[in-house]
Amino acid sequence: MPHRSSRWVAAARLGYRCHIYEPAAGPPAGDVAWAVTTAPYEDGAALDAFAASVDAITYEFENIPATALDRLERRRPVRPGRRALEVSQDRLTEKDFLAGLGLATAPYAAVADGAELVAALARIGTPAILKTRRLGYDGKGQARINAPVEAAEALAALVGAPAILEGFVDFSAEISVIAARGQDGAVAAYDPGENRHEGGILRRTRVPAAVPRALADEAVLAAGCILNALDYVGVIGVEFFVTPRGLVVNEFAPRVHNSGHWTQQGCAVDQFEQHIRAVAGWPLGDGRRHADVEMLNLIGTEVAEVPHHAARPDTAIHLYGKEGVRPGRKMGHVNRILRG
Amino acid sequence: MPHRSSRWVAAARLGYRCHIYEPAAGPPAGDVAWAVTTAPYEDGAALDAFAASVDAITYEFENIPATALDRLERRRPVRPGRRALEVSQDRLTEKDFLAGLGLATAPYAAVADGAELVAALARIGTPAILKTRRLGYDGKGQARINAPVEAAEALAALVGAPAILEGFVDFSAEISVIAARGQDGAVAAYDPGENRHEGGILRRTRVPAAVPRALADEAVLAAGCILNALDYVGVIGVEFFVTPRGLVVNEFAPRVHNSGHWTQQGCAVDQFEQHIRAVAGWPLGDGRRHADVEMLNLIGTEVAEVPHHAARPDTAIHLYGKEGVRPGRKMGHVNRILRG
Repeated sequence: MPHRSSRWVAAARLGYRCHIYEPAAGPPAGDVAWAVTTAPYEDGAALDAFAASVDAITYEFENIPATALDRLERRRPVRPGRRALEVSQDRLTEKDFLAGLGLATAPYAAVADGAELVAALARIGTPAILKTRRLGYDGKGQARINAPVEAAEALAALVGAPAILEGFVDFSAEISVIAARGQDGAVAAYDPGENRHEGGILRRTRVPAAVPRALADEAVLAAGCILNALDYVGVIGVEFFVTPRGLVVNEFAPRVHNSGHWTQQGCAVDQFEQHIRAVAGWPLGDGRRHADVEMLNLIGTEVAEVPHHAARPDTAIHLYGKEGVRPGRKMGHVNRILRG
Repeated sequence: MPHRSSRWVAAARLGYRCHIYEPAAGPPAGDVAWAVTTAPYEDGAALDAFAASVDAITYEFENIPATALDRLERRRPVRPGRRALEVSQDRLTEKDFLAGLGLATAPYAAVADGAELVAALARIGTPAILKTRRLGYDGKGQARINAPVEAAEALAALVGAPAILEGFVDFSAEISVIAARGQDGAVAAYDPGENRHEGGILRRTRVPAAVPRALADEAVLAAGCILNALDYVGVIGVEFFVTPRGLVVNEFAPRVHNSGHWTQQGCAVDQFEQHIRAVAGWPLGDGRRHADVEMLNLIGTEVAEVPHHAARPDTAIHLYGKEGVRPGRKMGHVNRILRG
């Protein structure tokens, strides 16, 4: 999970101490946290001791087991709440939720077996993409179906996991809104950023997005609608496709979002601090932006380009301190100031 | 020492791990450092083990004993070097150094005893300020002399410490330059900020300073002159008085400087990262500024005003996580964006 330390740095900046619960040994944030518990999500005693040591709990990873969250939530407030996680953990639940709010989504259908996949393909057409309902991240657990003949192979690749078939959306641009909702129900949003993905991985975000103001407003309103429907507390990232027939919601993430990293250089209150403010009951920043920014992810061996970026005076560098370089792994990002 | 954690955060952002050596138990940065050694500056074995564990050494506090620095420097490069510390640790040496560069300073004289103080007062006049040569910080170790009759009392207050008498400078503004010099000798400076001190403590810095461009350039050139003369590597803060007869150098600090905290919101590369870049041999940021900023220190009980600042969307908050509130203690600062 990229860039988690920014959260603890933001919390420290506001005078808070962070206690991190993390199953993996040597969490990347170990050097910036006040305390770290290394224990599996199934360790009830460790969860209880963790909860007892803190005032409020938040998370940076949406696939935490429900049993662990239930246990934590009995002892301390978890923000954003259970409902946001339930919805975002399951692509089918998420699509149903969005559709229920009257928001446009890609055409979709639940797929439990081959027969359902055949029926779904008949309705949605090809190309389409078959995804596991749960545990998706950066394009993993997905199989593209270019023609009905590929259906069986795609289904086999998911080895029996409950799935969803999604139709492709013909879009001219991808934008995202980073928004926040406070404990008092106040909502604040940053200006939408324009994203470019490659191979399911975000390459860059540019703010402001080159879209009409009315479309940007529509995206912000949709994000606010999602936040209110979930009685959400914290920062959310909502991705949209810009299509000839208007905005289509791609998905949302119940956490700070890679496409919001530009706020570190563009705003007095960045998305990391905004999240801590919401979780801790502070007034929210209003999302105003004092610079135009382009955020570029450093993916895999691109981390070797840091000297190039460091030589540019308009560029802020953020490395995550990850030990191993792997293809597709986000090693850091840079924020380039386009106009101050 | 205020805000030290920003240094380690900047280092982490560039992919480095920090090992902190600190005599006091529970250093404020303990929660953001990779490793911490708590040992006195006189513990040779601890100093050796510390030096062996790192690639390069820097400091954030100019009154480290020379013996400790000598020991460290035999094992690893210390940046900025020994000379910068020697000069800045002693107000008399510093004034002689500045005068030797042809830079204007306040009138000054060495004072070892009462007779020298009387002679110095006769030459410099009153009001004047008697300061210990070493270990000054935020107005401590100083006594103002309004008339010659107060000389004996002022001298007694310094309990025999070698001293310097400084004449007052009639100034219309205080400005400071935060500048840096790399290992290759390249120098970069941020635009001068305009400072307001009260009771010897910095209250606020506003950038850009309301001074003619030629004066700002003169200040930057003076800072560059100091950096080159010291063969300096790292960030320096140089304070100036603006007088009818031009700039007068007040003092310099061989470290990031309180009056440079505005760079956190105004520049892609802030002074903390700039210092790490210099110490680690990276190219320096060029000091360009994409926003006008006012930095306000939160001193003592002013930390209680944080909710007021938090409610302003143009304001970034930086708290230091210090445990006790004391009069004059810097508890944090805020950066207000004036224009982006």
